[in-house]
Amino acid sequence: MEKIKVGIIGAGGYGGCGAVELLQAHPHAEITALIDKQDVGRRISDLYPHLQGFCDLPIVDPEDPDCPDDFQVVFFSTPDGVGQKGASQWLNRGVKVIDYSGDFRFNDLETYRGYAARIGRKEDHASPDLLPRSVYGLCELHRKEIAGTDLVGNPGCFAVSCILGLAPAIKSGLIDTGSVICDAKTGVSGAGKTPNPLFHYPARYDSMNAYRISGHQHVYEIERELGLVAGEEIKITFTPHVVPLCRGILTTIYARLDQGQDLKGVEEVYRSFYHNEAFVRVFGPEVLQVSTNVRGSNFCNLSLNVDERTGNLIVVSLIDNLVKGQAGSAVQNMNVLFGLDETAGLLHPGIYP
Amino acid sequence: MEKIKVGIIGAGGYGGCGAVELLQAHPHAEITALIDKQDVGRRISDLYPHLQGFCDLPIVDPEDPDCPDDFQVVFFSTPDGVGQKGASQWLNRGVKVIDYSGDFRFNDLETYRGYAARIGRKEDHASPDLLPRSVYGLCELHRKEIAGTDLVGNPGCFAVSCILGLAPAIKSGLIDTGSVICDAKTGVSGAGKTPNPLFHYPARYDSMNAYRISGHQHVYEIERELGLVAGEEIKITFTPHVVPLCRGILTTIYARLDQGQDLKGVEEVYRSFYHNEAFVRVFGPEVLQVSTNVRGSNFCNLSLNVDERTGNLIVVSLIDNLVKGQAGSAVQNMNVLFGLDETAGLLHPGIYP
Amino acid sequence: MEKIKVGIIGAGGYGGCGAVELLQAHPHAEITALIDKQDVGRRISDLYPHLQGFCDLPIVDPEDPDCPDDFQVVFFSTPDGVGQKGASQWLNRGVKVIDYSGDFRFNDLETYRGYAARIGRKEDHASPDLLPRSVYGLCELHRKEIAGTDLVGNPGCFAVSCILGLAPAIKSGLIDTGSVICDAKTGVSGAGKTPNPLFHYPARYDSMNAYRISGHQHVYEIERELGLVAGEEIKITFTPHVVPLCRGILTTIYARLDQGQDLKGVEEVYRSFYHNEAFVRVFGPEVLQVSTNVRGSNFCNLSLNVDERTGNLIVVSLIDNLVKGQAGSAVQNMNVLFGLDETAGLLHPGIYP
Amino acid sequence: MEKIKVGIIGAGGYGGCGAVELLQAHPHAEITALIDKQDVGRRISDLYPHLQGFCDLPIVDPEDPDCPDDFQVVFFSTPDGVGQKGASQWLNRGVKVIDYSGDFRFNDLETYRGYAARIGRKEDHASPDLLPRSVYGLCELHRKEIAGTDLVGNPGCFAVSCILGLAPAIKSGLIDTGSVICDAKTGVSGAGKTPNPLFHYPARYDSMNAYRISGHQHVYEIERELGLVAGEEIKITFTPHVVPLCRGILTTIYARLDQGQDLKGVEEVYRSFYHNEAFVRVFGPEVLQVSTNVRGSNFCNLSLNVDERTGNLIVVSLIDNLVKGQAGSAVQNMNVLFGLDETAGLLHPGIYP
Repeated sequence: MEKIKVGIIGAGGYGGCGAVELLQAHPHAEITALIDKQDVGRRISDLYPHLQGFCDLPIVDPEDPDCPDDFQVVFFSTPDGVGQKGASQWLNRGVKVIDYSGDFRFNDLETYRGYAARIGRKEDHASPDLLPRSVYGLCELHRKEIAGTDLVGNPGCFAVSCILGLAPAIKSGLIDTGSVICDAKTGVSGAGKTPNPLFHYPARYDSMNAYRISGHQHVYEIERELGLVAGEEIKITFTPHVVPLCRGILTTIYARLDQGQDLKGVEEVYRSFYHNEAFVRVFGPEVLQVSTNVRGSNFCNLSLNVDERTGNLIVVSLIDNLVKGQAGSAVQNMNVLFGLDETAGLLHPGIYP
Repeated sequence: MEKIKVGIIGAGGYGGCGAVELLQAHPHAEITALIDKQDVGRRISDLYPHLQGFCDLPIVDPEDPDCPDDFQVVFFSTPDGVGQKGASQWLNRGVKVIDYSGDFRFNDLETYRGYAARIGRKEDHASPDLLPRSVYGLCELHRKEIAGTDLVGNPGCFAVSCILGLAPAIKSGLIDTGSVICDAKTGVSGAGKTPNPLFHYPARYDSMNAYRISGHQHVYEIERELGLVAGEEIKITFTPHVVPLCRGILTTIYARLDQGQDLKGVEEVYRSFYHNEAFVRVFGPEVLQVSTNVRGSNFCNLSLNVDERTGNLIVVSLIDNLVKGQAGSAVQNMNVLFGLDETAGLLHPGIYP
Repeated sequence: MEKIKVGIIGAGGYGGCGAVELLQAHPHAEITALIDKQDVGRRISDLYPHLQGFCDLPIVDPEDPDCPDDFQVVFFSTPDGVGQKGASQWLNRGVKVIDYSGDFRFNDLETYRGYAARIGRKEDHASPDLLPRSVYGLCELHRKEIAGTDLVGNPGCFAVSCILGLAPAIKSGLIDTGSVICDAKTGVSGAGKTPNPLFHYPARYDSMNAYRISGHQHVYEIERELGLVAGEEIKITFTPHVVPLCRGILTTIYARLDQGQDLKGVEEVYRSFYHNEAFVRVFGPEVLQVSTNVRGSNFCNLSLNVDERTGNLIVVSLIDNLVKGQAGSAVQNMNVLFGLDETAGLLHPGIYP
Repeated sequence: MEKIKVGIIGAGGYGGCGAVELLQAHPHAEITALIDKQDVGRRISDLYPHLQGFCDLPIVDPEDPDCPDDFQVVFFSTPDGVGQKGASQWLNRGVKVIDYSGDFRFNDLETYRGYAARIGRKEDHASPDLLPRSVYGLCELHRKEIAGTDLVGNPGCFAVSCILGLAPAIKSGLIDTGSVICDAKTGVSGAGKTPNPLFHYPARYDSMNAYRISGHQHVYEIERELGLVAGEEIKITFTPHVVPLCRGILTTIYARLDQGQDLKGVEEVYRSFYHNEAFVRVFGPEVLQVSTNVRGSNFCNLSLNVDERTGNLIVVSLIDNLVKGQAGSAVQNMNVLFGLDETAGLLHPGIYP
């Protein structure tokens, strides 16, 4: 089988680097071009020297007339606002598009605008006509729709951890959907590659903080997805925190368990829901779940607990923000888009310690 | 004024080290003896070389007949079960006692036994007669009682952050007391000095985890204290997490705000409640609170937020677990026990970065 | 081709974990048994949960009569003293042996005793007859001899970085061999999995230190190997340091350049020496070399510099102590022992950041 | 006694913050103004919230006509090039000046130019007439001259560790002065407060590197100072490294010991040299020296070792780069400038862990 040709736009960031790491060893895909406006002419292995010998392609300027374009799929590893401007030129030529940002996570302009307001975006969506065609790229919930489209909005890292941690409970009606609280802790790599006073090593190595309390943009897609599962509108309280580690999101999810529900039933519901999923692993309270269990891999580990004193369900949801929370999900989406084995190129355990 | 003579039992641990750091520069107290069963004969500055020249006292065996005993106050910087056996011998000779463990945080045997069950302690309390005399050493709530006793149970580190973060809201009836969730993140120093596979550097530097989910022992004293404030029994959901940093507890507290309450009212209540407190600082949502803001100092910073979409109060409570969460509170209690200025020896800003 | 069957003794440590990570994805080898005296009966993926689904073999007691033994090669991922007792039973049955410790790094009892004295080992070597048969497992220097033996002493992590950094200069007579100073910095994973007060997170996260100054045991094999290259006895000064990171050894090597030598010549000599080596990469001073360039991979990066003011050659030698410094070299040795492509199963770039 | 009034120019950086930490608790000095071009109008405790309640002065623009100027001493906590332009206006009005940069570390234009070339500075010195009047602010070597001047060039952080580690050996002629190699490892705070890709948390938390190999500017003042001690020109090889911790410099110093010298003699020389020094502590090889021993304090710890196999002296020199390597030395210089007890305001042990 000929390999699928992949182009990566925004290749120079952590999201691009993660995609290169996965795709350079993918059995059915190959990277054809790395495109970015910064570091043009430098090899990706100059930016990320661990890639030397694995991928030494140069960064090409998207405006360069010689910029390659013979892809079957293009990853927009770019911030909000880029993919929505560039997607149609690729789609029109039959190239499938996977966008990392919020540009294609919503199917109508109205909802997108709610999201855009949260990130302080003033401009309206550049391609509102594409929105109905886009699919939210969380394979565990939308596998079939992804297989049938050519435009995927890769999910937000926090959203992956929250949605996977809550979907079974909501689907099976185990909890009071008005009581959901998601307390998320992320490693610093989630903030990307650009230096910032808050992520400067001396300022961060021994510090943690909550931020955008009840105002983070990912809450939008979480509520939309959970609402779809529930069949009713859902509002959640979501607080992100930054802690001084590199990779990992640990979200502690609290919800009031409905009368009569217990741990045993919860475990059954979750195990059944994820029974056929390659990348979601369900655990009871007897196993300590540490974020390194999923570091460097595409897995989501869920730890199920019930506080019998207060009647709360407590789900601890763990992912690697750069893999299942970003590049890994993108590759998983690519596999589904092209009818490949969904796990192709994704079965790596990471390294430890 | 002659200086108050202090003995520290269990001096070799982080709790002892923290007390030495504060007391060696205290204007009205001096360390007379450092007592421990381990490292007998070694100077404290051999164990903690940064103390060289500041405190070079040797560790004395408590069984040593020459062990000094001319104190006015003794700190039991010891695990559960030690202070309850040793306290009376000191109290009987007029020496005041401040115990770091759970041994004297409860006033009756019944409650203590509930706590003891949580830590898997089989033995009954060795000095149940002392329990009614003991006072819970959180000065902000029990200043007067502390001044009138000679036996203080220093509060648990998580408990300090939760109680200070919730007391005003509960006192003023702002929240549904049945809805409280405390999601706490602690640095690794909270686990003490003894090596452990979970806190081995390679296992911890890039990992985080929840633990004792809904089963941590500090929940006991939190509920007791909040119940006293509320005038009714309170149950909370409490989840501790370890994150890879050294010093700091950040507790994110969630509670359903009662109808009609808003951020403005919440801020007024908290500012009023802590108006005269030297060590509690109240902030609105406009100031980002990072754990380094209190690192190395005896302060508790509270960040007040309201999620208007869901009606939840979100309080972020920050302390240094080794200072306000341990040795700092102990010294603050000592100041109150002896009628000193409560801030004596405690007004240090810490160092940054 | 049938896969080579591998047994790992001492599987529960970091060295075993590293071997499992590499071998579970090796195209021509498969793990048949994991043997250890600790954690018997637990799956390796219980000890290292990131391995779940990749290797779930249980730990077997070496004394267990049902302990598998149908290997073609056995890795002794064990401390000094274990392999020397166990190797012959395997060798006698035609199983090749790769030992991680110092047990088989020396070819005669005399030299071994010098090494043993350094690590405070009182017992004499248990199998002195095997010593002449053993080969020092640094493929870059001993590829042919490794191919011809069945007993390999895997090199020490510091030794790998020093020997690879110095061999070309010594071989070509560029430096005064009496002037060599190796200043090595290692991440904490080099100390292994067992908790220790010096590697307890709070004690280590913001601290560094030199240790065993001029007394580290690896100096022994470094001097032996460099002496072989030089054809004369060589003594070096070697100082190891621990710094607060997980993976990586950076050794800064200083030596007085002989009259008439310059950077250009040095670069030529090194590039020529390593011209055919898959895992050694040579750089001039214009490229900043950071330890993450080799993290998680089997590469050794060498940065060549000359201080023209003082006439010193300065080579910065970078490896991942757990890969090229341990399990990666072991797998490379295995590949050579069995006539496989030396790079089989080893061409991973690691992950970043 | 009235307190000495201090102004700090460049107050917003780590060097300013360190000075504020020390001066806010200094018994004989008080901060009168904080001056900077950035963050004008914000309180220093907005920039560094741990200072809240300890120093809440606003940042004043140096161009502001109301900028206070009633100081007795001004700290230029500024990069190269600022102090040399601003110093004379203060000196002319009788205000003493302590400059953190290289602007006043050299006494003649020729030498300064050599230094300036190393940092790529094109402009010539703005006040060459002031150079002969300036004194190198390392009290241990220049106490008397500092007491007699009004213009101090605070030493570079690496320079402090190297000079204090070598001065006794050179003074007493113990070593071959042509053989000196200084291998320095610094924490990231030495790079200051400004974010940078190399010090971004994800890029740094698990990485180390050498940099400016044989080209660092501090080598200049080290050689000058050591030359003064030796009475002859000295050239050294100096390699700085960054390791992922916040505070601390550990320099491992190598030099060939002269024939007949041994550890005992070395120890005597060093102990005698630093006999009356409050901030230098000398240790033999029997005590493990860790950088946390001096973290947060103004001490320099020296560990003396001799490699008997190679005849090299190995001195490990430890300081906190932000205290003895910067703000602490500045305050020590201030104390000497004003005839105060040299240790005033500097006897803090730091905190641990």
